[in-house]
Amino acid sequence: MSEVHAGRRSRLRAHASPAGDVAAVVSRPSNVRYLVGPAPAGAVLLVGHDGGDTLFGHWDPAEEPVGPRPHEEEGLRVTSLDGDADPALAAVVAAAEGGARAVAVEEHHLTVARHRALTRAAPGTGFTDLGCAVERQRLVKDEDEIAALRVAAEITDRALGELLESILVGRTERHLALELERRLVDHGADGPAFPTSVATGSHSGLAGHRPTDRRVEEGDFLTVRLGARFRGYRCQIGRTFVIGTSPADWQIELYDVVFAAQRAAREALTPGVEYREVDRAAREVLSAAGHGRALGPVTGHGVGLEIGEDPRLSPAAMGRLGPCVPVTVEPGVHLPGRGGVRIDDTLVVRSAADGGPELLTITTKELLAL
Amino acid sequence: MSEVHAGRRSRLRAHASPAGDVAAVVSRPSNVRYLVGPAPAGAVLLVGHDGGDTLFGHWDPAEEPVGPRPHEEEGLRVTSLDGDADPALAAVVAAAEGGARAVAVEEHHLTVARHRALTRAAPGTGFTDLGCAVERQRLVKDEDEIAALRVAAEITDRALGELLESILVGRTERHLALELERRLVDHGADGPAFPTSVATGSHSGLAGHRPTDRRVEEGDFLTVRLGARFRGYRCQIGRTFVIGTSPADWQIELYDVVFAAQRAAREALTPGVEYREVDRAAREVLSAAGHGRALGPVTGHGVGLEIGEDPRLSPAAMGRLGPCVPVTVEPGVHLPGRGGVRIDDTLVVRSAADGGPELLTITTKELLAL
Repeated sequence: MSEVHAGRRSRLRAHASPAGDVAAVVSRPSNVRYLVGPAPAGAVLLVGHDGGDTLFGHWDPAEEPVGPRPHEEEGLRVTSLDGDADPALAAVVAAAEGGARAVAVEEHHLTVARHRALTRAAPGTGFTDLGCAVERQRLVKDEDEIAALRVAAEITDRALGELLESILVGRTERHLALELERRLVDHGADGPAFPTSVATGSHSGLAGHRPTDRRVEEGDFLTVRLGARFRGYRCQIGRTFVIGTSPADWQIELYDVVFAAQRAAREALTPGVEYREVDRAAREVLSAAGHGRALGPVTGHGVGLEIGEDPRLSPAAMGRLGPCVPVTVEPGVHLPGRGGVRIDDTLVVRSAADGGPELLTITTKELLAL
Repeated sequence: MSEVHAGRRSRLRAHASPAGDVAAVVSRPSNVRYLVGPAPAGAVLLVGHDGGDTLFGHWDPAEEPVGPRPHEEEGLRVTSLDGDADPALAAVVAAAEGGARAVAVEEHHLTVARHRALTRAAPGTGFTDLGCAVERQRLVKDEDEIAALRVAAEITDRALGELLESILVGRTERHLALELERRLVDHGADGPAFPTSVATGSHSGLAGHRPTDRRVEEGDFLTVRLGARFRGYRCQIGRTFVIGTSPADWQIELYDVVFAAQRAAREALTPGVEYREVDRAAREVLSAAGHGRALGPVTGHGVGLEIGEDPRLSPAAMGRLGPCVPVTVEPGVHLPGRGGVRIDDTLVVRSAADGGPELLTITTKELLAL
């Protein structure tokens, strides 16, 4: 990976410092990880105007390796700080001492108070906004990143598949969620990509439902949303099942509508399509069925080192999907007091020549009666 | 709780707006929770200069309750926003329209980019820094808060006690951590207060060790750190055990030193003592035994709605402990390649007349051979 990270830093340097006199200070954790790989919590990267990069952070002295740290073998300097020293402040001071004319910082991540401390520490240096330059670099994934997402999805499908083989009636949402997270780890995940959501009966179909002590009952809709984190990359799957042998008519009808909306959005995933067109594809199906208001603000979002990355597939989103952008497609409808349906997939945008959108989460989307 | 929250907001108003013309906008999630109770993620509280408070946030439309929301019954207005609207921006606009001369915001929480958007949305309004006013209010806990911490500690002791009765040899750090978290939930926790750390053999004694697939072996030190979250309040316990019947001499010696350091810091917890004195009490014992450098930057920290609150018990910390302040005492020593010992307790500072420091985490600190 070392040359991959070095290449990403070079592209950032070219963007942040076209004239070779601006240093970039990257503090947002997922951006730091993208540019150097795993790093201690709170580590900050200085992308030097002169081509030299340094990672500032707090390494546990007890964990100091003998010999160079992995990052140093990637041609990246590493400075371990003591006590409470702010790595961002150390990075800014180093940039100023290194002769940078200005420092570009992530104003969407640094707090006002922290930014003030940085500007005071380097009074002679100009401060500019790096903006979301790293996030934009992260939008399109390389094949290594997509491979990690693919493994994350395989782990997730396996954990979900095992749950479906077990007895569900009588178990609480909390326990099902904990068991799913244990299975993710069993199958090699670093951990869950986000807090697992298990929603039964009247909770089903709610976005981001927190598991409760409600137990699975006959006739319930059961909505499960989970994802594995593998090498830092996060995927998402959501499925809705019916408990018992015979789903009610309203359950079958609602499921069919959400399924049709989700399929319409999946089929809209082509290179060049506007973000909002994907959202509209799902929204139109739901609106035609009278469920337009039930849909949340987004139909899907990018995934990668974070579970909620750009792009956002929403009515107001501006921009067009490119190839090799992984996104979720996750419409849902909840009927207050009754329950609802969510169906979430993670897919990678591919051209028709490449076979069209690549579905990473392959668990069946038929309405299963468990 | 409603009058409790209202009282906290009144105290904040009196601090932020002595002349009755400054509105406070609280955006830091743990501060919002302290002032209104549980709220949707990202909710922002406007503490009005004129005595009226409003909570802005995104409630899932599917979850809209019939009739007033709980917060409204507490004499708190609630405004549910659509789409991507920033609750902080809505709060600032409402403050300006409400005639506030200035708005005090949490500059240690708002990002530079977000703060800029707020100032642009209310051009005629002055912006000041609320600073850590709410965090200072949170420092000393009332008896309801301490009662919640006490329950969190009882749950934690129970989960740990059950683990000690089970077979440990051959199981991985990951599985032990997941089982502990499951037991916390079984016993009524909202969830873990922080990611459970299980460290075996050469990992033992490391601060914040992430569980791996290493299995427990005969002769290992086993360090376990966990805590329950109950009604939002988080406690912490850490214990180190030896696996097998006969601990090695170096293990007994190291354990005795860390135990003595931890006891010295616990005994230093009296109202009026300087934060750094508590830290020094532990540090001196470790230094005398030649382990001074092995101790991390802090010997303990406050706990409450967050696991790492003020005060910090560190050599540079300024301030004195007051009664009813819950803190951890958690010295540790790790010997690279061999392992180490950590012993963490959560205690509440009490005067001698009140019986001295109240130990919440009562699991034994004898060196148990499991």
